[in-house]
This record gives sequence, C-alpha cells and structure tokens, in this order.
Amino acid sequence: MVEFIHTATLLHDDVVDNSQMRRGRATANSAFGAAAAVLVGDFLYSRAFQMMVQVRSMRVMEVLADATNTIAEGEVMQLLHVHNADVTETDYLRVIRSKTAKLFEAAGRLGGILAGVPRAQEDALAEYGMHLGTAFQLVDDILDYSGDLAQTGKNLGDDLSEGKATLPLIRAMRNGAAAQSALIRKALVEGGLSDFGPVMQAMQETGALEYTRQQAEDSARQARTALAGLPHSKYKDCLLELAAFAVTRNY
Amino acid sequence: MVEFIHTATLLHDDVVDNSQMRRGRATANSAFGAAAAVLVGDFLYSRAFQMMVQVRSMRVMEVLADATNTIAEGEVMQLLHVHNADVTETDYLRVIRSKTAKLFEAAGRLGGILAGVPRAQEDALAEYGMHLGTAFQLVDDILDYSGDLAQTGKNLGDDLSEGKATLPLIRAMRNGAAAQSALIRKALVEGGLSDFGPVMQAMQETGALEYTRQQAEDSARQARTALAGLPHSKYKDCLLELAAFAVTRNY
Repeated sequence: MVEFIHTATLLHDDVVDNSQMRRGRATANSAFGAAAAVLVGDFLYSRAFQMMVQVRSMRVMEVLADATNTIAEGEVMQLLHVHNADVTETDYLRVIRSKTAKLFEAAGRLGGILAGVPRAQEDALAEYGMHLGTAFQLVDDILDYSGDLAQTGKNLGDDLSEGKATLPLIRAMRNGAAAQSALIRKALVEGGLSDFGPVMQAMQETGALEYTRQQAEDSARQARTALAGLPHSKYKDCLLELAAFAVTRNY
Repeated sequence: MVEFIHTATLLHDDVVDNSQMRRGRATANSAFGAAAAVLVGDFLYSRAFQMMVQVRSMRVMEVLADATNTIAEGEVMQLLHVHNADVTETDYLRVIRSKTAKLFEAAGRLGGILAGVPRAQEDALAEYGMHLGTAFQLVDDILDYSGDLAQTGKNLGDDLSEGKATLPLIRAMRNGAAAQSALIRKALVEGGLSDFGPVMQAMQETGALEYTRQQAEDSARQARTALAGLPHSKYKDCLLELAAFAVTRNY
C-alpha cells in the first residue's frame, strides 16, 4: 500500500514539476504524456485504498488516510513556495515532514500495528520513520546539487531549475555574503539553470551542503535513538542499518 | 465524500483534457495552472478518504474504494480510446458506466447502507444510481453538441475537439452513409473543430442525437423502475423526479 501511494505521488510529482527523468529512465509523463500519468496515479491511489480496506483494520485505514492527506497538503505547500526566496528553514522542514517523512512515519507505525506491538513501541517505530524520512529527503536535496546522474538517475539542478528552495539553497542564502544571497535569490525567483555554476560555488563557499548533511546525520541519529526501547532482533538491525545507509547513499 | 471525490475527478479531468471552462467559469487548471489542479485534486481525494474513515463502517469504505478505483479505470480506458474511431457503443457504455455511473451507484448504495435498509432495497438504490448516472452522462454527451454555453457553462464541441467518440458520434458513424462515416472518422482522429459544422449536419441527418436521447430516456426509465419495490415516501418522489430531470435538463 505504501509503495503504491508512493508511486502515485511520484507520478503526479513528475507531472507537476514537468520532470523528464527518474530512476535513470524517462518519467511516465515524458514517455506517455501528462494525462496518462495523472490518471494512472489516481488509479494507484485508489488501488492502495482498496488494498487497505481488505486489511479490515480501522487503525490501518486511519493512519494511511491521514498520511495521504498530509502528503497532499505538503505537496500543495511546496507548490505555493515555488520561486519564493523567503522560504525559511522551518517552512522547508514543514514541507519535507509532510510530503516525504509522513509516509515513512506511517509505514513505521503500520508495521507496529500489524505486528500488534504495545503502543509505546508503535510510537517508537513511527518516530523512527519520521526521522528516517527527514534524513532521506535532506540527502535527496543534497544529491540534487552533488549527485552523479549515472548513480542518482536524476538530472542535476532540477530543484534550482524549478525554483524550489531546499535547505542547501536556504542555508547558502542565509549564511552567504550579500552578493551570494542576491545571486541565489535571483536564481530561485527566475528558475532555470543559467546561474547554476555561481550558485554551486556560493553553496561550497558557505558550507551549505555540509550543513545540510549534518542535519541529515542528526535526523538519522534520532531515527536510531527512537528504536532504543525495542528488543534486539535482526529486523531491528536492518532498521538501524537503513538509517545509516540513508545518509551515506549516493543514489 | 461523494461530492469531494467527484470534484477531485473533475479537477484531474480538466487537466487531462486541458479544458478551459466548467460551470461557466475558468477551470482550476486554466486559472491556477495544471500543477495546482493535480495536487488539490489529490488533496480532495485523500480528504474524502479521511471522512470515510470517520464513518467507521467497513462497507462504506469498501463501496467507495471500489467506486474510486473503477472511476480511475474508466478514465484510463477513456484516455486509451481518444482519437480512436473504432470505439463501439459497447466500449462507450463500459467507459461511462465506470467513469460516471459508478459514483452515482455508490451514492445510491451508501444511502441504503447508512439508513440500514434490507439488502434488496440497497441493491435497488445502487441500480437506480447506476441507471441515473448512465442517463446523466448520455445527456451530458448530447449537450456537448446541442447545448447552449450560457446554460451548460461548457464550450460546445469539446468532445469532438478532444477526439472523444461519444455515443452521438458513434451512432452517426455506424448509421451514416460512407461519406458521413469517413468525415466523422477523420474529425475524430484529427481532433480540433475544423469539421464541426459538417459533423453536426451528419449527426442531424442520421438522427444520432435523437437516438442518444432515447437511450438516455431508457436509462432514466430503468432508474425509476429500480425503485418500484421501495415504500412510498417524499424522498422516493425526489429520486423519481431526479431521474426525470436528468433527461429533460438543458444544463
């Protein structure tokens, strides 16, 4: 269910951003047109809800209905922020918690619900998911400036080109000299990639990518800490490893 | 919930068809852009599911999850049929049962479920909804060729322009002389409105709109018949009246 909801949001995201490449291949909207991507996204959403109903658990449905609504809200927020250079770190965190981390949080909580663990462990799994999702998105936003197309499967600079103020940009704007801030502000408002080189330089000089990586590592650490109360098991080891991987990955 | 799902599908439909006008006003995609219309549609979908969960009835959720999935399937089918002049009356009926009538059917069944009526009456209400929705869509497809913008709030000829083979066109193609069929086939495949005048004439000469209206009246009659076993009430009178109105409306 989570995978279907995730895929549905990606299909719609790529329409919204008019993205051409994902996972190293042409996006659905680029291969089949925006219309097909919108409708097949709707199909996957509704199929996920059908699968949910089959589980016949009110709590499962509640968690996923709330998550899906929060994701949609986060996507709308992000759209409202496009080409807005006044977006703060707090605004940014609110968006990624909603559009990304919420689904990780739901996935964590659902694992707990379906396994019938005590509420405290269920909450711990939800918290793990929330921090893992935050770390994941922060790294995603770093890779948009530093990744390798062959490994990430996405084009470099998409966020800047679309006018999205992610943490690396916000940090460089806040922390940079007046000229650097003005440059990034202009690049964000105008969109496109004509200022990509100078913006990259400003991010390096202000340590903005390093700062973002630190935030991601903090989130990954908080994810691992959230699991402290869970009994030892090979599954817990996997979750701990996943949190570590989320911040070391380069794809 | 039904209204929210309906509105969500309209928002996405208008993106898919790139429609400019609905209910006499600019569509959301035309006023706010396709991105906003896609995301706000997703928001409404997920809000409808949240509302559903609050009802805390498995059957309500099952009915609406199935309906939403069938609608999405119908929309995809319709998209696959675009610019296809070989679409049959059966194909067309399958599409409108899925994309339109299914939600009316669900609304009818939900009324029964929430009121706790016996299963036979619930089925009767579902059947009423299915036929009402079919009649409604048939009339909608007639109005696309014969309506008055000031009353329908939509542009004339949208379906032809988008390459959608609705019943009036299918009937005129099947029932027309070779030259008329060839003309409509060409207009459908090419899209646009350059052949609108001659196509209208072919529809008039073949009685295609009259034939479609007859089908709509049949469906409305079947809707009324489905209610025969329900006890008399002012609510039943409203439903009967609604079925009659669905085929006399000119907006």
